[in-house]
Amino acid sequence: MYRTHTCGELRIQNIKETVTLSGWVQKARDLGGMTFVDLRDRYGITQFVFDMETNPELCAQARKLGREFVVAITGTIHERQSKNSKIPTGDIEIIAEKIEVLSKSVTPPFTIEDNTDGGDELRMKYRYLDLRRSCVRENLVLRHKMGIEIRNFLDQLDFIETETPVLIKSTPEGARDFIVPSRMNPGEFYALPQSPQVFKQLLMISGFDRYYQIVKCFRDEDLRADRQPEFTQIDCEMAFVEQDDILNTFENLTKHLFKKLKNVELNFDFPKLDYADAMTYYGNDKPDTRFEMKFVDLSVIAKGNDFKVFDEAEYIGAICATGCANYTRKQLDQLTDFVKKPQIGAKGLVYVKYNEDGSFKSSVDKFYSTEHLQKWAEACNAKPGDLLLVLVGDRNTTLPQLSELRLEMGSQLGLRDNEKFSPLWVVDFPLLEWDGDNKRFHAMHHPFTSPKKDDLHLLNTDPGAVRANAYDLVINGVEIGGGSIRIHDTELQAQMFKHLGFTDEEAQEQFGFLMNAFKYGAPPHGGIAFGFDRLASLFAGIESIRDVIAFPKNNSGRDVMIDSPSTVSDAQLVELNLALREIKKK
Amino acid sequence: MYRTHTCGELRIQNIKETVTLSGWVQKARDLGGMTFVDLRDRYGITQFVFDMETNPELCAQARKLGREFVVAITGTIHERQSKNSKIPTGDIEIIAEKIEVLSKSVTPPFTIEDNTDGGDELRMKYRYLDLRRSCVRENLVLRHKMGIEIRNFLDQLDFIETETPVLIKSTPEGARDFIVPSRMNPGEFYALPQSPQVFKQLLMISGFDRYYQIVKCFRDEDLRADRQPEFTQIDCEMAFVEQDDILNTFENLTKHLFKKLKNVELNFDFPKLDYADAMTYYGNDKPDTRFEMKFVDLSVIAKGNDFKVFDEAEYIGAICATGCANYTRKQLDQLTDFVKKPQIGAKGLVYVKYNEDGSFKSSVDKFYSTEHLQKWAEACNAKPGDLLLVLVGDRNTTLPQLSELRLEMGSQLGLRDNEKFSPLWVVDFPLLEWDGDNKRFHAMHHPFTSPKKDDLHLLNTDPGAVRANAYDLVINGVEIGGGSIRIHDTELQAQMFKHLGFTDEEAQEQFGFLMNAFKYGAPPHGGIAFGFDRLASLFAGIESIRDVIAFPKNNSGRDVMIDSPSTVSDAQLVELNLALREIKKK
Repeated sequence: MYRTHTCGELRIQNIKETVTLSGWVQKARDLGGMTFVDLRDRYGITQFVFDMETNPELCAQARKLGREFVVAITGTIHERQSKNSKIPTGDIEIIAEKIEVLSKSVTPPFTIEDNTDGGDELRMKYRYLDLRRSCVRENLVLRHKMGIEIRNFLDQLDFIETETPVLIKSTPEGARDFIVPSRMNPGEFYALPQSPQVFKQLLMISGFDRYYQIVKCFRDEDLRADRQPEFTQIDCEMAFVEQDDILNTFENLTKHLFKKLKNVELNFDFPKLDYADAMTYYGNDKPDTRFEMKFVDLSVIAKGNDFKVFDEAEYIGAICATGCANYTRKQLDQLTDFVKKPQIGAKGLVYVKYNEDGSFKSSVDKFYSTEHLQKWAEACNAKPGDLLLVLVGDRNTTLPQLSELRLEMGSQLGLRDNEKFSPLWVVDFPLLEWDGDNKRFHAMHHPFTSPKKDDLHLLNTDPGAVRANAYDLVINGVEIGGGSIRIHDTELQAQMFKHLGFTDEEAQEQFGFLMNAFKYGAPPHGGIAFGFDRLASLFAGIESIRDVIAFPKNNSGRDVMIDSPSTVSDAQLVELNLALREIKKK
Repeated sequence: MYRTHTCGELRIQNIKETVTLSGWVQKARDLGGMTFVDLRDRYGITQFVFDMETNPELCAQARKLGREFVVAITGTIHERQSKNSKIPTGDIEIIAEKIEVLSKSVTPPFTIEDNTDGGDELRMKYRYLDLRRSCVRENLVLRHKMGIEIRNFLDQLDFIETETPVLIKSTPEGARDFIVPSRMNPGEFYALPQSPQVFKQLLMISGFDRYYQIVKCFRDEDLRADRQPEFTQIDCEMAFVEQDDILNTFENLTKHLFKKLKNVELNFDFPKLDYADAMTYYGNDKPDTRFEMKFVDLSVIAKGNDFKVFDEAEYIGAICATGCANYTRKQLDQLTDFVKKPQIGAKGLVYVKYNEDGSFKSSVDKFYSTEHLQKWAEACNAKPGDLLLVLVGDRNTTLPQLSELRLEMGSQLGLRDNEKFSPLWVVDFPLLEWDGDNKRFHAMHHPFTSPKKDDLHLLNTDPGAVRANAYDLVINGVEIGGGSIRIHDTELQAQMFKHLGFTDEEAQEQFGFLMNAFKYGAPPHGGIAFGFDRLASLFAGIESIRDVIAFPKNNSGRDVMIDSPSTVSDAQLVELNLALREIKKK
């Protein structure tokens, strides 16, 4: 037997017991004639004591232990002289009687401590050592507990967890698919699912009534910090429901998780904000509503003063940064640099200081009198001491720029506390999105999303104005999940495909089985999918989803630990009827 | 609102309530001036009544409903005159007041009933309709419930469910990998995991202590009835354990599942049978022990009688079929045909009838006297009325043939009852398996399996004789799962790779990250994986795993419903730096 107890469970009540513990040597230190060894496992740390005087041979053995050696130590539990209140086992120590080295360790490339000296790259290469650090492991334990609570909640509501296939069919819609050559069907390929969308709809047609699955999905997209080629969804679908049924169910799930895992009571109805308002007031369909700082449209009141930049702009938008009238020249310059960054792309920033003494100082003093600026301040509900920040340009370009500026100011003002949670539903998304490059509409959510009944009459005349029964759950500016009520009518679905520029043949080839399924009695249905990785990182209070994934990939889609992807043998390719093209240098 | 209740919940207590139910029209029949509609959903069936006399318009509407129409019907609950005790809602019926047709249906290609008229192929093509049949859906509900119970059990034992990557690295060991071309890393490929083996071992090295995952795995093998290219494993690993710790834990899990899901108490220790005995007595490493009929080796007593076939055989094995001495000529011929089938491949079958009157009649009467046959009967513990069946040949060829015959006789004698469960552990598997074609050893389990300490000294001198700390759980002749204690020592692992014919470079290239990880303090560890599909089909009492998979593939790896795999566009291939070779006709 390797252990009688774990390194986290012994207490003062266990005194005098003889026990065996196994784990990793966290540290060993000599003090006088004694050697102290901290033994670590997942459950905690326990201190062992070796005495050179009473047991010189054993103590000498202990002195040879290096960091991260795996050992089993037997001994007797004693009360500790100088207690360590920082750890639950800090009242006791174990006088060692026997050591067995189970496995040695060379010196790790970085220290196995919360505050490690290892850089990002090194820690990814040695991810198995990084995962030894309790701060990293705790994120994964949290994720595990979230999984339990999600399942508990949904199981009680009669949802059936149903596995859908991973080897499915490639469709050109949406993001790029990963594809998998089929050896048994030469020249043909499976695709990995971007979501189980079609299958969960089929399960509704099958009468499963309530489906869920915590499931891996795949997207072959260029990666950003919060994207991974494989990610996990909490995927759900319900039949015989309307939008509010789904929103209520998953609002309750969200509250359940906050209560169970964070002990946070969200005892209010999540606000609903329609997409149009989200764009008007936050310039963003996933607004961070931990703080207000809503956009104010100055387009009407700020025009007509011979300031060409303003007069010619489609949109003039302002935010009011409370108490920032004292910003220095340097701070204002930095904000200007911020909005001019290529990824934001504003041409410049106008500021108006509403000084504590009631006077105004602005970067457009040449064009606007104090009376003018006073009107702006009133429109923005600004008080003396506040700072107005103004961006101008095309509405669609300026809104997201102002959104970035708002988020930056929120951060500068400390309004984006990771332990404060501000959930909301963004609803009434547009059904279609115009793709100027290809001169066609794309489905904003996906091609199965139902249009709002009230807007059906616009589908042929003004498709871009049609709103969808589509919704997102947003918390702290993060899109946690989204979904829609689906079309359950063959004809409407066919019409949708037409608007999306599919010929009948294309629609038939790609989605024929779904359209066919609709012919056999499809119930009204809808669903939602939460991003499990994002939800877990939100709960863990960290920015990147990488830290809640045991073995993540880097920005090039590489797993640097196992060195994947990698080349395969020519024989493997031949068997799959494949050949490599000459690789173009990038 | 589409419904106030489901079709399965209304009872006599609900009489006089006005309710709305939604579901599918199971059937509609006219009887006198009345029309009866059975409405079905996942939860049950409820009968609606339409009266031509009191509400002719509504009744006419009801008469237009076809099978599988989706409707919402509102009405008032009444006590039923002729109660239907077969369904829980059989005491009531609902006098309809309003119908809304939510979705029409064309005539389904087969009847949506337990006893359907649809053939296999048709049901797979219209799987979404097949899944409407309650007998099919119930298998998937059972599977869902198994998932819940597995997680409950393991969560309580401090196992952490941890997701491991799906896009990993191809290794030439084991079965064929599915591979996934990487667009971002041209010329390189991911592989889909055959199991998360390496990752779960890394998690043990990370100190996760107890890991599990219910996870999809992939094998590009030629398919049989009980194989799918993607399948689901209950995958587990534990640190600081010995073999018995794992066996106890998963024996308890198995008992827990039987108790919770089948109400079957397996209140005994699962027997342990070593591999060598399993082969000797059942010719099979997954013996069906619902019945005895062990092999008896007649090689010694049946030789030396100038019967050349016997004298020259390496092995003469017999089974005793109780009470079958009265088998007819035809029955015996059929058994002979059975063992001569190409997939079994015996050259012939010898029988010995031990008649009720104590006389013998055998197919080798020419060579053996009654005294001889009496000795055989004694060796086989046969009684008058029994039938001995004897196969001869090379031991390794004959054992599996005799195993097939034993299973066939078990079936003929009704000894393989699907509601009787006979679990056992098969232990002490050989570490290595000789591959005569390639003149090398293969790992029987996998290359990380640890040899038994007692056999370590044979590793260099007689590697084929070394037994492994490897074990399988077998129930009713089905291998439910298997696992092993792993090597946790870099040097022993390197030695293993050598025995498996890897050069240092190959071992380093393919498993370098694992061998490297071992250098940083690896705990003793081991694990097991259960086949979730097989376990679910065992619990459902069905033969094929297809019926416990929502959307299975056929024997060519095709999903005939979505018509996958399929061709992809040339543009997609170009982007992946791939080209198709000319497809050879098969």
